[in-house]
Amino acid sequence: MNTRNSVYLGCSLDGYIAGPNGELDWLDIIPNPEGSDMGYVAFMEQVDALLMGRKTFETVLGFDVDWPYTKPVYVWSRTLEEIPASHEGKAFLVKGGVAEILEQIHAQGHYSLYIDGGQTVQSFLQADAIDDLTISTLPILLGDGVPLYGKLSESHRFELISSTVHLGQIVQNHYRRLRSTAVE
Amino acid sequence: MNTRNSVYLGCSLDGYIAGPNGELDWLDIIPNPEGSDMGYVAFMEQVDALLMGRKTFETVLGFDVDWPYTKPVYVWSRTLEEIPASHEGKAFLVKGGVAEILEQIHAQGHYSLYIDGGQTVQSFLQADAIDDLTISTLPILLGDGVPLYGKLSESHRFELISSTVHLGQIVQNHYRRLRSTAVE
Repeated sequence: MNTRNSVYLGCSLDGYIAGPNGELDWLDIIPNPEGSDMGYVAFMEQVDALLMGRKTFETVLGFDVDWPYTKPVYVWSRTLEEIPASHEGKAFLVKGGVAEILEQIHAQGHYSLYIDGGQTVQSFLQADAIDDLTISTLPILLGDGVPLYGKLSESHRFELISSTVHLGQIVQNHYRRLRSTAVE
Repeated sequence: MNTRNSVYLGCSLDGYIAGPNGELDWLDIIPNPEGSDMGYVAFMEQVDALLMGRKTFETVLGFDVDWPYTKPVYVWSRTLEEIPASHEGKAFLVKGGVAEILEQIHAQGHYSLYIDGGQTVQSFLQADAIDDLTISTLPILLGDGVPLYGKLSESHRFELISSTVHLGQIVQNHYRRLRSTAVE
């Protein structure tokens, strides 16, 4: 079975996915009168499950909305002891390193994963375990915040699959990891 | 006279303009058999002069090529005492803060400036003195290096003017600073 780990994130020009205090309001600076989903629904359709860290999980729990996911959500945490009873059957705790948690999730029959949240994405990039990156860049320098990218011990080549401008202002680039050493 | 300070830079996906030791070889990872200039000549035509820091100046001097600029180059440095005799009449030393050096350069009749080099661009962004950003993003995570963006004390909105894919792989976005507070 082919496995795929995909990232789908909004990002500022200077590479932040949230403000210094977790602010996400800047993601809505571009008017979206017709409610374009910018490819989110199509992206979600091709994933089997989500993986996110505790912070992202708790951020989503804190939103004043119903649980937004129809796919299983794996919560990767060292400190969380259990998933709140309210979310049993929807969210599942996983523990271990990148390879271990992928093994646990694949064993559940979930092979195409949406990897979400800053620290989780950074850990997966460090392990060279991200296959697809879809980054929507908003036309703003935040100046400070939660960075999308962290340091890596070596460079990683990607291939641009598509580049689309949404709402006239948001550039969404879809990249796929190029692992062939011939092109490094 | 209208003034304009423009940036035109190549950048990795993770926001570096050079590797940890100043490496620039990754800027050439995409084959360019027909020698596309990716808009560089047109960009250069609309500037009156360049401004760069000492490090970028010395990097250009170190390239094994003839002096590549036909426009005056202002070198912004606290430490440099004088421009080497070899480059008299081509490069000019300026000293002071952002506002002071802009005043000096404008007094020479140069109003549209190409602001180049990591530290110089960061200083200008911190002073909110950049009007145009043309960033060409290469499909690579460098993992470490010289960052394009530094911290800012407040967010800066930009407007996307155009987005172009060069050589099938390099996304070049042209942004203009939006200073109207109505859209902040």
